[in-house]
Amino acid sequence: MSEVFAVRRSRLRDRCVAAGSAAALISRPANVRYLAGGAPPGAVLLLGPVGDSADELLCPTSPNGDPVDGRLDEQLRLTVVPVHGDDPAVAAAESASGSGADALAVEENHLTVARHRTLRTVAPGLRLTDLGGAVEQQRMVKDEDEIACLRIAAEITDQALGELLESILVGRTERHLALELERRLVDHGADGPAFPTSVATGPNAGRRRHRPSDRRVEEGDFLSVCLGANYRGYRCEIGRTFVIGTTPADWQIDLYDLVFTAQRAGREALLPGAGYRDVDRAARHLLDSAGYGEGLAPLTGHGVGLEIDEDPQLAPAAMGKLDACVPVTVEPGVHLPGRGGVRIDDTLVVRQEADGGPELLTITTKELLAL
Amino acid sequence: MSEVFAVRRSRLRDRCVAAGSAAALISRPANVRYLAGGAPPGAVLLLGPVGDSADELLCPTSPNGDPVDGRLDEQLRLTVVPVHGDDPAVAAAESASGSGADALAVEENHLTVARHRTLRTVAPGLRLTDLGGAVEQQRMVKDEDEIACLRIAAEITDQALGELLESILVGRTERHLALELERRLVDHGADGPAFPTSVATGPNAGRRRHRPSDRRVEEGDFLSVCLGANYRGYRCEIGRTFVIGTTPADWQIDLYDLVFTAQRAGREALLPGAGYRDVDRAARHLLDSAGYGEGLAPLTGHGVGLEIDEDPQLAPAAMGKLDACVPVTVEPGVHLPGRGGVRIDDTLVVRQEADGGPELLTITTKELLAL
Repeated sequence: MSEVFAVRRSRLRDRCVAAGSAAALISRPANVRYLAGGAPPGAVLLLGPVGDSADELLCPTSPNGDPVDGRLDEQLRLTVVPVHGDDPAVAAAESASGSGADALAVEENHLTVARHRTLRTVAPGLRLTDLGGAVEQQRMVKDEDEIACLRIAAEITDQALGELLESILVGRTERHLALELERRLVDHGADGPAFPTSVATGPNAGRRRHRPSDRRVEEGDFLSVCLGANYRGYRCEIGRTFVIGTTPADWQIDLYDLVFTAQRAGREALLPGAGYRDVDRAARHLLDSAGYGEGLAPLTGHGVGLEIDEDPQLAPAAMGKLDACVPVTVEPGVHLPGRGGVRIDDTLVVRQEADGGPELLTITTKELLAL
Repeated sequence: MSEVFAVRRSRLRDRCVAAGSAAALISRPANVRYLAGGAPPGAVLLLGPVGDSADELLCPTSPNGDPVDGRLDEQLRLTVVPVHGDDPAVAAAESASGSGADALAVEENHLTVARHRTLRTVAPGLRLTDLGGAVEQQRMVKDEDEIACLRIAAEITDQALGELLESILVGRTERHLALELERRLVDHGADGPAFPTSVATGPNAGRRRHRPSDRRVEEGDFLSVCLGANYRGYRCEIGRTFVIGTTPADWQIDLYDLVFTAQRAGREALLPGAGYRDVDRAARHLLDSAGYGEGLAPLTGHGVGLEIDEDPQLAPAAMGKLDACVPVTVEPGVHLPGRGGVRIDDTLVVRQEADGGPELLTITTKELLAL
């Protein structure tokens, strides 16, 4: 298991060398975790120019060993910065400079201006370049162990949601239902929720990123929930919309069918070689044609992994094409202010058609349930 | 109520003018909230050079109106950036440039290098300077409404903790107790937890920032908890350590007395004019003299407010002196790996001696309780 991190670091090092800078400083926690097995708070990873033996994880304090931070690659050298609380990025730059590197690639989309300036001050001979999104791109295609973690995260999520659906919902607040869902995620083995659980009922239903309020579930409501488990750092997402009571209204059935159809179109567009914007369009144009184009979310879906929201983005202006083994969400929705709405969200892994097409991880039924 | 935000913006504008740059771009969410009443996700605040009427809150999407993000100052002009998902900081720089400003102060300890470069690209005529920690410093001294929110946050926290102490603890996992505490915070009116609740039992007790595990509470354990409520954005903190069972061991009583004495010394050092490092030393030297200097936390306490961890830092190298109406924590502790430990944490407001000295917000008893 620990070889996988050394291999990932090697691949990144090769990219850096090709780009002219053999040393790199990784500071974004999910990227540190991806390359080092774990990410103690504040830790940075220095990829040495020489090779794996010069790689170093620098931490501001002695790591707690909290499993939630991941399991550090034992082959990786670990340094605690000498002065409590000092910025380990500074120690990393000094280390790179001291080992003869003349250039250091840093994550300009993560380091603040202030930190960057400090690095230039302590290591003036070091040319700082931009790593760009190199690690984010490397993270996109998952290996089978990563997909296994996502599969387990999805099972946990399906279980938590399934249990909630068997319980009484009318009269309970969005907040309580959200807390209940999060408790069940942990009960079923999650490290924690993948993101703040969303429960939206009545006029709130279908709202993207609705924060649970004290509104109580009522008969006749749409109820939309969005939740996910974090399992060993890997995060998945499911979103479902239900109707409360015995008989959905016609407008509810029609809206649900529309969003279901759009979401299915998005799912079916997931193939290796498909453009990100084409997947987005497959779902978006159906909602647009039905007159709902105005209030739609900026993207139809996004990658998942060590972060709940990672590359790629399935959005109208996105460049790039899907590969096999890239996990993404497909989550279109329509929200009608004051009335409610529908959002349907799955996590799937892109697979070759010959391998059966996209692998659906979140298997809770998408049939419209009256609860 | 809405005047308070205009007044805060005015004070900041005056500081900026004095520093040579009449326009400022605030991006750190707590700072945006402090100055604008609310902080929709991704929003930035542009302080105009001309005066209050030119101030503008720029948002990447239409705000949801989620109360958890605060209540926006109605006098403040609100702009949603024209293209969905574009960086509102860019729009802000263009706006400042267009209104004739020649300099713009930005938060270099918040903006990434990449964002900063984009601002320079879109507004090349605009000289970008550093706001430094100006807003963080302005936030340190709280007004009576802010202190009232912290008082309520502390009451909620004391209530949640008090209820837990009346329940059965033996046999329950750290995780479940933490989730239970967080549920009770919300039940008693919190917007949510101020930070991830820590519950640490047996050998984990006294560990700083321990993440709750599946370890179950046992007779004879130390049990240390650390939690806080977020009430209207204002966050407080309490930490207490208990013994499980009827008879604490002698080593437990001795260690508890030591930490209690150190914490009391820290609290009693809180006076207007006292140096941050002197408050730290008051607690730290007692623990150090008893032989526990090695594993101590880097700071004895910190400010609280719209962030759980804000200026000032009560630490050995900290420069500066306390003012009245600055709320801080005092939270020394000792952790003995494999055995457990004690941490005692209060939130207090610095007050003049003539006003009764430091106002204790977290009033749960600090007597060693056997539960």
